[in-house]
Amino acid sequence: MQPLDLGKAFTLIEPGPVILVTTHDGQKANIMTLSWTMVMDFTPRFAITTGEWNYSFTALRKHRECVIAIPTVDLLDKVVGIGTCSGADIDKFSRFALTPMPAQYVRAPLINECLANIECKVIDIIERHNILVLEGLAAHFDTAREEKRTIHAVGDGTFIVDGQTLDRREMMAAKLPPGIQAH
Amino acid sequence: MQPLDLGKAFTLIEPGPVILVTTHDGQKANIMTLSWTMVMDFTPRFAITTGEWNYSFTALRKHRECVIAIPTVDLLDKVVGIGTCSGADIDKFSRFALTPMPAQYVRAPLINECLANIECKVIDIIERHNILVLEGLAAHFDTAREEKRTIHAVGDGTFIVDGQTLDRREMMAAKLPPGIQAH
Repeated sequence: MQPLDLGKAFTLIEPGPVILVTTHDGQKANIMTLSWTMVMDFTPRFAITTGEWNYSFTALRKHRECVIAIPTVDLLDKVVGIGTCSGADIDKFSRFALTPMPAQYVRAPLINECLANIECKVIDIIERHNILVLEGLAAHFDTAREEKRTIHAVGDGTFIVDGQTLDRREMMAAKLPPGIQAH
Repeated sequence: MQPLDLGKAFTLIEPGPVILVTTHDGQKANIMTLSWTMVMDFTPRFAITTGEWNYSFTALRKHRECVIAIPTVDLLDKVVGIGTCSGADIDKFSRFALTPMPAQYVRAPLINECLANIECKVIDIIERHNILVLEGLAAHFDTAREEKRTIHAVGDGTFIVDGQTLDRREMMAAKLPPGIQAH
């Protein structure tokens, strides 16, 4: 897992992949699956929607930090499995054979098997909409990984896998922050 | 454009496609391109990030309504074009040969060439984060359209096209609201 320029971290979230979010409640680490995310401008700030119904929410609210991990299509069944059981009674790292790795700035672990990881702190909670605002502290990307296709939840139990990439960098040059290029 | 159950409208946004947002400022209609969106639970509520820097923002704040239109890959160059010019001096419907169609509940028009359209009102503006919360009022889907692949902005000028669809409806059945199935 190599360092990724934090200024490019939003390019991991903007295409709308399903993400995994790790937390640490002081006793143990946990993972949740989430696709309710939003980029906030060309910044390492992200919004997520979650709330009381989610076991990880207590740790997010209390410790105000997490790691966003980006899984790829080969991990789909783990991603769905993680999203359909609760950390209240299951050690998800063990159950789904995922490897927690120490992060630099937060106690929540990176997930070694994922394409990328973004260490985040919770900078705001908008209770009336169940929106949490996260700010990235550091990003990591596995440049050696062959499978890079992410997955997009439709929300009905089906998932769309990344297809071809189309390049419109020239048309968009004037609209993008300097130094932004694909990883 | 056929009616789509409003309860399924979130399945258009959750996969993270680039969207078009139409507004009407009382004088004329406009369009913007946006990929900073978020589903809010299994509801027809959506968050978007935009602000003062965007010409459409004035109409959104004043008239508090819009239409979210979902373009497909055949419209990519129009989508990028719309995102790189301003409605301040251009009639984007005319410039990009798109057909405005009357909506049921809002003055902002549907876009006839898009796969789907969601009529929305703005129910909240969270100024400190440039987040607007929208609530869907009605949804429309073009069932006759052959090209259904949407596009995902990476944020660096490249775009990922929808690839294959994977079905995990059985694994996820217990987590999904009743009656949710692919359009």
